[in-house]
Amino acid sequence: MQDQNKFNYIIQQADNCLILGQRLAELCGHGPVLEQDIATTNISLDLIGQARLFYQYAAELQEEGKTEDDLAYLRDAWDFKNVLLVEQPNGDFGKTIFRQFLYDTFSCYFYEELMKSSDERLASIAAKSHKETLYHMKWSGDWVIRLGDGTEESHNRIQQSVNELWSYKDEIISVNAVDQEAEKAGYGVSLELIKEKRNEKIKAVLEEATLTTPEGDYAHKGGKEGTHSEHLGFILADLQFLQRAYPGNEW
Amino acid sequence: MQDQNKFNYIIQQADNCLILGQRLAELCGHGPVLEQDIATTNISLDLIGQARLFYQYAAELQEEGKTEDDLAYLRDAWDFKNVLLVEQPNGDFGKTIFRQFLYDTFSCYFYEELMKSSDERLASIAAKSHKETLYHMKWSGDWVIRLGDGTEESHNRIQQSVNELWSYKDEIISVNAVDQEAEKAGYGVSLELIKEKRNEKIKAVLEEATLTTPEGDYAHKGGKEGTHSEHLGFILADLQFLQRAYPGNEW
Repeated sequence: MQDQNKFNYIIQQADNCLILGQRLAELCGHGPVLEQDIATTNISLDLIGQARLFYQYAAELQEEGKTEDDLAYLRDAWDFKNVLLVEQPNGDFGKTIFRQFLYDTFSCYFYEELMKSSDERLASIAAKSHKETLYHMKWSGDWVIRLGDGTEESHNRIQQSVNELWSYKDEIISVNAVDQEAEKAGYGVSLELIKEKRNEKIKAVLEEATLTTPEGDYAHKGGKEGTHSEHLGFILADLQFLQRAYPGNEW
Repeated sequence: MQDQNKFNYIIQQADNCLILGQRLAELCGHGPVLEQDIATTNISLDLIGQARLFYQYAAELQEEGKTEDDLAYLRDAWDFKNVLLVEQPNGDFGKTIFRQFLYDTFSCYFYEELMKSSDERLASIAAKSHKETLYHMKWSGDWVIRLGDGTEESHNRIQQSVNELWSYKDEIISVNAVDQEAEKAGYGVSLELIKEKRNEKIKAVLEEATLTTPEGDYAHKGGKEGTHSEHLGFILADLQFLQRAYPGNEW
C-alpha cells in the first residue's frame, strides 16, 4: 500500500456512512408516515452510495486486488473505524432524527472542507456528497425543530434523545493521529473549523426547537480506534451475513 | 442416510430447542430481577443442551461425517423446522413467559410420550429432557398466574401477550407427514394425546391466572415445513455469525 494513512482516513468516513446507512435501512417500511419512511430510506441509500465511493477508492489504494465488497462485508468489528454515534440504536423517530442531525451537522461541514482536498478524488467524492448532505441536514434540522417545538409529548421525547445522545456528539470531531497526518499532508480537513460551524448550527436549531442543551461535554470515544459498543457486532451480523454464508456471491 | 424421516423428526425438535434457547439467551443480563435473569438463562442452557443431544444423534444418522455444529451453524433458514412460536420476539417479561409456557406445555408432555419411544436413544434423551421440562413448566406456569392474578398493569400486559401469541399456540401439535410416519414406525409420539393434556393444562393455568382465553383457533403454520417469519433470519444471523465468519473455528 502506497499511503496507509490515506487509506485509514478514507475508511473512517466510509464506515460512518455504511453503518449509519445500515441503521436507517433497518427502518425501511417502518416510518411513522410514508413520506418520512421514503425520506429515511433515501438518506440511507445516499449514505451507502457515499460509502461505496470511499470504499472503491480505498480498495484501489490498498493494491491487494480487493473490492468495495471486501471492505464492507469481510472486515471484523475491530477493523471498523466509525464513531459510536452512528451505531446507536434507532429508538423512536425522535432519536433517529437527532442522531441524524448530529451526524449531518458533521458531514455537511466536513464535505464542505473536503471539497478543497489536495486529493482530487477525495475532493470530487466530497463535492457529490456535500450536495446530498445539505438536504439531509435541512431535513433532520427541520424535524428537530418540529418535534421540539411540537406537542408536549414530542418535545419531551426528543429532549430525552438529546440528553441520551449528547455524549456521543463530539467523538466525530475529535482529532486522532490519522486526522492529524491527513490534515498535515493536505488531503484531510481541519476538524477544528468544522467543530465551530457545527456547534453554532446545533445551538441555533436547539434554540428554535425550544430544547434544552444538556450540560457537560463528556464524549464517549473508541469507535475511531476500532473499540465499539456491543451494537456494532449485531449490525455487522445482519449486514454481513449473506456474504459470510455465501462467500463471493454477487448479484 | 438410513432413515431420512427419523432425521427430519429429530431436527424438528432440535430446532425448536435451539431457537427458543437462542431467544432466551438474548435476555441474559436483561431480566427484571437477578433471580429470574438466572432462571431464563438456565432454561436457555437446558434447551441448548437438549438441542445438542438431538443434533448429535441426527448427525450420526446422517452419515455424512458432519457434527452438531454443522447442523446448528451451517444450515439456512429454510432448513430449519422449528415452529413459528419459538422464533417470536421476547417482548416484555410477560410475553417471554407466555411464549415459554406455551412451549413448555408442549415439550413436557411430548417428552413424557417420547420416553416410550421404540428408539432407545430418543427415549433416553427424552427421559433426561423431561426432568428439566417439568421444572420449566412449573416456573412459566407459576409466572403466568403471578402476572395474570397480579396488579392491573401486569394482568393487562400478559393478557395482551396471551392474545398475541394465541394463534402461534397450535402449530406445535399439528401433525405433518414426518410426525405421521414417526408415530407409525413407533419411534414417534401421538400428538393427539399431547394436545389433550396440554389444552387442559393451559386452561387450568389461565383460569387460575384470571386471564381470558382468546376466541378462535386460527393457527399460524409454516415453520415445521421450513417457511418462517422474518424473525428467523435475524436470529440465525446472530447465532451463526461467528461460524460463518470463521468457518471451522472451535473453542
